Amino acid sequence: MSFTEILHSAQRANDSMLCVGLDPEPAKFPGAWKGDAARILDFCASIVDATHDLVCAFKPQIAYFAAHRAEDQLERLIAHIHRVAPGVPVILDAKRGDIGATAEQYAAEAFERYQADALTLSPFMGFDSIEPYLRHAGKGLILLCRTSNPGGDDLQAQRLASGELLYEHIARLAAGPWNRSGQLGLVVGATYPEEIARVRALAPTLPLLIPGIGAQGGDAAATVRAGWRGGEAPAPIIVSSSRAILYAAPGEDHAAAARAVAKATRQALNRARGVN
Amino acid sequence: MSFTEILHSAQRANDSMLCVGLDPEPAKFPGAWKGDAARILDFCASIVDATHDLVCAFKPQIAYFAAHRAEDQLERLIAHIHRVAPGVPVILDAKRGDIGATAEQYAAEAFERYQADALTLSPFMGFDSIEPYLRHAGKGLILLCRTSNPGGDDLQAQRLASGELLYEHIARLAAGPWNRSGQLGLVVGATYPEEIARVRALAPTLPLLIPGIGAQGGDAAATVRAGWRGGEAPAPIIVSSSRAILYAAPGEDHAAAARAVAKATRQALNRARGVN
Repeated sequence: MSFTEILHSAQRANDSMLCVGLDPEPAKFPGAWKGDAARILDFCASIVDATHDLVCAFKPQIAYFAAHRAEDQLERLIAHIHRVAPGVPVILDAKRGDIGATAEQYAAEAFERYQADALTLSPFMGFDSIEPYLRHAGKGLILLCRTSNPGGDDLQAQRLASGELLYEHIARLAAGPWNRSGQLGLVVGATYPEEIARVRALAPTLPLLIPGIGAQGGDAAATVRAGWRGGEAPAPIIVSSSRAILYAAPGEDHAAAARAVAKATRQALNRARGVN
Repeated sequence: MSFTEILHSAQRANDSMLCVGLDPEPAKFPGAWKGDAARILDFCASIVDATHDLVCAFKPQIAYFAAHRAEDQLERLIAHIHRVAPGVPVILDAKRGDIGATAEQYAAEAFERYQADALTLSPFMGFDSIEPYLRHAGKGLILLCRTSNPGGDDLQAQRLASGELLYEHIARLAAGPWNRSGQLGLVVGATYPEEIARVRALAPTLPLLIPGIGAQGGDAAATVRAGWRGGEAPAPIIVSSSRAILYAAPGEDHAAAARAVAKATRQALNRARGVN
């Protein structure tokens, strides 16, 4: 199954637009695990086990593993997700951006070594930095378009001589000439609902990955209203939350607390869509 | 010593603007090592040993290690470089781009785990995706500005409403408001000498990392004429070549062949500068 098919199927099966971001920080681990980088897998697996029937995707962020020499734990975590939740896709958040032979190596890392279903990429180097990944048929490639941080304005909100903003230019390319194989999606931050709506208008059928609700302060309801288009067109949104779920409680009830926050977030998203 | 100081000192000591890019591809390894990912360290170390008195920097590309689960070999390679060539800086080519806590993890990976002297970054997410790295005093951060691939035009050569091209906008920010701590440099591809000259004019004192001579076809002499400014101002250029040196010969004489190509490339660069 392709990433898009798994994603649609998980969204239906779990009635969810919620993606749990797996950003493990040992300093925030509960109880006896606190500060122990050897517990990254255990901690993330406890979150996966507690939430996998509530989500449409999991999104491990590779930096949190690489900083602790925990690549092996990341491999085993993704294998664990595929085992306990075979219907839930894994988006590896790595924001890679390079060309030619180097891009082929990154693609091998994401799709062969880690067995991810999708990967985040930076579009900064242009289409030939995207193209090598598309040879991995069925895998999803989710391009940075409009990010949720204040500094996102420095480049992405620059107005081009053509009249477009830079992020609109990216959305138009990703929805059109770059998307020959139907594998592309876009990252748009939840802190800018009006810009989610703009990207959705330019890219009506692309999956949108929307980080920034929860700890980063994005409004879940406004996010869904801006990105969701019901009816016949398949236009999924994947709304990602990390810290608000992972670190919902500092003690041994952390997994139950994570489940409760995930459930409430899923419900808030569905309510904004007019479901439940 | 800061990255800039080590770089200056290596350029003087070895009379060189040449950086050897370490992009190990086991399929291209010589003799009995061919196809053996366990020989990545041995292969790269043989190149380092054969060229370290001819270069101003080494630039390992992390994707070539990550695709083969060879992070441990990358750690040992960088330790090897620091041991045999303590005056030659290591630029980790990873083109990271993320914000806040995630950027802090990538910085820990590059500077604490791998002990690199400098790191390549993507500027796509803006200044707050650069700032966390600057807290690592003395480390160099080299931002993508104008890349050497044809697709680089898709975003970087877009004209802004202000009249600037996007890469000029980046060069201006990197030379000005973003460079409070003096740690920044810029990546500019060798395939566009006139654009190297433009970036040099906008960023007269920043180190420029220039990949693309050799296998990618950039002209070494034109590159140096465009980027080099002699006289009193410190404006180093770091001209990077990978495949043309690493795979100069397929047999057991590969290290001697790599040395010969590195020597010829160094000389061609120096000649263009008016030295030798």
